Amino acid sequence: MARDERGVTPQGDDFSAWYNELVVKAELVDHGPVRGTMVIRPYGYRIWELLQADLDRRIKETGHVNAYFPLLIPESYLQREAEHVAGFAPELAVVTHAGGKDLDEPLVIRPTSETIVGEMMSRWISSHRDLPMLLNQWANVVRWELRPRMFLRTTEFLWQEGHTAHADAGAAREETMLALRSYASLATDVAAMPVIAGEKTPGERFPGAAATFSIEGMMRDGRALQAGTSHDMGTNFARAFNIGYTAPDNTVQLCHTTSWGMSSRMIGGVIMTHGDDQGLVLPPALAPHQVVIVPITRGDADGAVTAAAADLASRLTRMGIRVHVDGRTHLSPGFKFNDWELRGVPLRLELGPRDLAAGTVVMARRLGSGQAAAKESLSLDSAPARLSFELTAFQALLLQRATEFRDQRTARADTWPDFAAAVSAGWALALACDDRTCEAEIQAETGATPRCIPLDSEPDAGPCIRCGRPSAYGKRVLFGRAY
Amino acid sequence: MARDERGVTPQGDDFSAWYNELVVKAELVDHGPVRGTMVIRPYGYRIWELLQADLDRRIKETGHVNAYFPLLIPESYLQREAEHVAGFAPELAVVTHAGGKDLDEPLVIRPTSETIVGEMMSRWISSHRDLPMLLNQWANVVRWELRPRMFLRTTEFLWQEGHTAHADAGAAREETMLALRSYASLATDVAAMPVIAGEKTPGERFPGAAATFSIEGMMRDGRALQAGTSHDMGTNFARAFNIGYTAPDNTVQLCHTTSWGMSSRMIGGVIMTHGDDQGLVLPPALAPHQVVIVPITRGDADGAVTAAAADLASRLTRMGIRVHVDGRTHLSPGFKFNDWELRGVPLRLELGPRDLAAGTVVMARRLGSGQAAAKESLSLDSAPARLSFELTAFQALLLQRATEFRDQRTARADTWPDFAAAVSAGWALALACDDRTCEAEIQAETGATPRCIPLDSEPDAGPCIRCGRPSAYGKRVLFGRAY
Repeated sequence: MARDERGVTPQGDDFSAWYNELVVKAELVDHGPVRGTMVIRPYGYRIWELLQADLDRRIKETGHVNAYFPLLIPESYLQREAEHVAGFAPELAVVTHAGGKDLDEPLVIRPTSETIVGEMMSRWISSHRDLPMLLNQWANVVRWELRPRMFLRTTEFLWQEGHTAHADAGAAREETMLALRSYASLATDVAAMPVIAGEKTPGERFPGAAATFSIEGMMRDGRALQAGTSHDMGTNFARAFNIGYTAPDNTVQLCHTTSWGMSSRMIGGVIMTHGDDQGLVLPPALAPHQVVIVPITRGDADGAVTAAAADLASRLTRMGIRVHVDGRTHLSPGFKFNDWELRGVPLRLELGPRDLAAGTVVMARRLGSGQAAAKESLSLDSAPARLSFELTAFQALLLQRATEFRDQRTARADTWPDFAAAVSAGWALALACDDRTCEAEIQAETGATPRCIPLDSEPDAGPCIRCGRPSAYGKRVLFGRAY
Repeated sequence: MARDERGVTPQGDDFSAWYNELVVKAELVDHGPVRGTMVIRPYGYRIWELLQADLDRRIKETGHVNAYFPLLIPESYLQREAEHVAGFAPELAVVTHAGGKDLDEPLVIRPTSETIVGEMMSRWISSHRDLPMLLNQWANVVRWELRPRMFLRTTEFLWQEGHTAHADAGAAREETMLALRSYASLATDVAAMPVIAGEKTPGERFPGAAATFSIEGMMRDGRALQAGTSHDMGTNFARAFNIGYTAPDNTVQLCHTTSWGMSSRMIGGVIMTHGDDQGLVLPPALAPHQVVIVPITRGDADGAVTAAAADLASRLTRMGIRVHVDGRTHLSPGFKFNDWELRGVPLRLELGPRDLAAGTVVMARRLGSGQAAAKESLSLDSAPARLSFELTAFQALLLQRATEFRDQRTARADTWPDFAAAVSAGWALALACDDRTCEAEIQAETGATPRCIPLDSEPDAGPCIRCGRPSAYGKRVLFGRAY
């Protein structure tokens, strides 16, 4: 395959084309036969497994347990919470026929599980001793998407959804924030994606939530990606599903519930936070192969290079490094270099007969500048320790680069022209009223929506950037165009 | 809650009632709102996670990679393989309506994924260099069940499905047997469930398969449970989905494919292989809590017992033992003992002020006879090492007990009365013809079906146990009533 067939449209020409081509060419996904569906190929699924393993550990360490609720939910359940059904009805896939018969009541494929979890919690919780109930499930959900996009908006996606019930409002809010912090840490420390954590404005809340919080990352086209959300439901779902408990004073009280989710969308965030015109750039913590060894076998008649590559790989494996030896014999080294560059492998090792004779191996970083960009010859003996260090440095470099990029494209805006300029390239921090009509006008004119009210920011007040009426929220709001 | 509310119907009175009550009372599952659906509660889901982790490791170690295929499959895909659609059509759940509109083509919720995987493999495979393609997915599937039963037959269940493509028949058959061996080892070494591995008779094959193999375990009522299946598809699906490759000699060939699955049904097998009238008996390898410590806090005014229990728990955790301290203050020790017995915890530790003063702790095994059944006092100092040994012994005891039970209830039958007697209590090894009418008559009269033709058995031939015509298969067939 020639280079041009493997290459992707440059980001600067058409970011959207770059993304759509890259996810398929890097073999992360393929298009499913039904419009808007996605097949997650092994290279993409491995990234999901790495995300999942890390988050599952965090979820369990904070006292939650996994469970599994049915995929099919009676349509009537969704109707019990008015805002919830209004929000999800347009996106539902409905089973009307099963086992050769028409069903008496249509079943919806879960778009999210608050309703069925609420129904079960109402059966399981009776006393204050049953609280808090801290559940999580890893599952697939279906939301019919009009403008599907691989990982970002697909008809079916994979996620985890936490669902918890608490005795009072304070405990539920604490849980909501705990989940949000887990997501922020996962994004920052694992995906190398700096995020702003904050509360959604009322117009952007989850349908049925009393408060919604999100983490927002900046993609390399300046747009925002919501990469995880955490909802404080207040007593809305407890009232709809009768989730109550007997308190120590023998009164019967409603529970306060929460839910929170992180999905395969995060993979789209990783791609658009780090990728470049050569392809993916994967943070080592999520790279299926952290190091790829390309043996240069021309002039290696006795197979010494192949043996040395296998030996080096096993030494790296023992260091806990995920390493892959590219032993394909019908492809040239040059093709392989481009291939692994496209697929975002952090570090590539080239090992030929001359390297081997000198006891060295050539390391090439996927990214870097000046000194760090050049190829470098390493001693084979010390390679494992050195590569372990390089992977840590590469992870840190990605986070630093993404943070600088985001900060350069985030501006405090106090005038409408400044605001419009800021959101055309990135984000604006601006004062805003809480009128949804005003939010809608901002979106109509600039494409930007309120992403969140950052938690970590100073009190501020003044006229709304759009209408001039007094600002709400006591802080600046983060605005940006979003995925 | 009084003892009788926690207890279950004895197995001897009504095995089915015993099972149905136990899965709910032990908090493994609850009934979902839609008939035949199951909510897997945390205690049950943890068993699934332990099974999953073990099998996923085996799958990866043998060169397979995980992927994820869409839930929704165009109805027309199933029709491409005639036997396949005939087998699954009666069990399909069909989405006819999505995103507020009627769909042009109905979509089925996957009952299994051969068709959609086949479609994708036909796009991904072009050269012999792409083979073998060794894929697996962990997923939910839906099959509309008329007689649902928790874990064993539910409308939705969790499973893994391996799907592989190979260059020739020999490689596909090797893969089929490799998967079967993994399942047999998982059942034996992890679930402590001895199994007979064998080939299905043609009448019991997976719809569309050229050959189907299964592992069969004996439950404590003498019935068989098929706990994993592996299918050699020959070129049936390759032909239906056009999965071809260019061979080294430049001819275009059809692939040979396989599929194999293990599901949440295995949990039902664990329950019915080991459970007794007191409740579950869990093999240590699958027990969410391998050891439960019940602190006896009466007379422990200074909290020394609580502190010692926590200390012991952390020492056990460091040994890799899954331990739980039952610190519930509103329940008596006696209630807790019954509770953990019902929930099948292998080893229980009782720690009171007098034990603590003596530097000891009382161990009670969930199962045993004579010496091993009695409670035993252990030194606190050496408890971790001792408990580690006891867990290994408990795991071995379960396998040995289940093997003896099965062997006692398995008989070679050469006459029809012997056959009928054998399958009324367990299994019969008998010579049989390959006529499906004869199989149907055997089932009508005795309830027994051919479970498999055991791989590990001697050649044998003679008259069919039912019709007297010459036997087929060259070996005895294992017959039993089955779940």
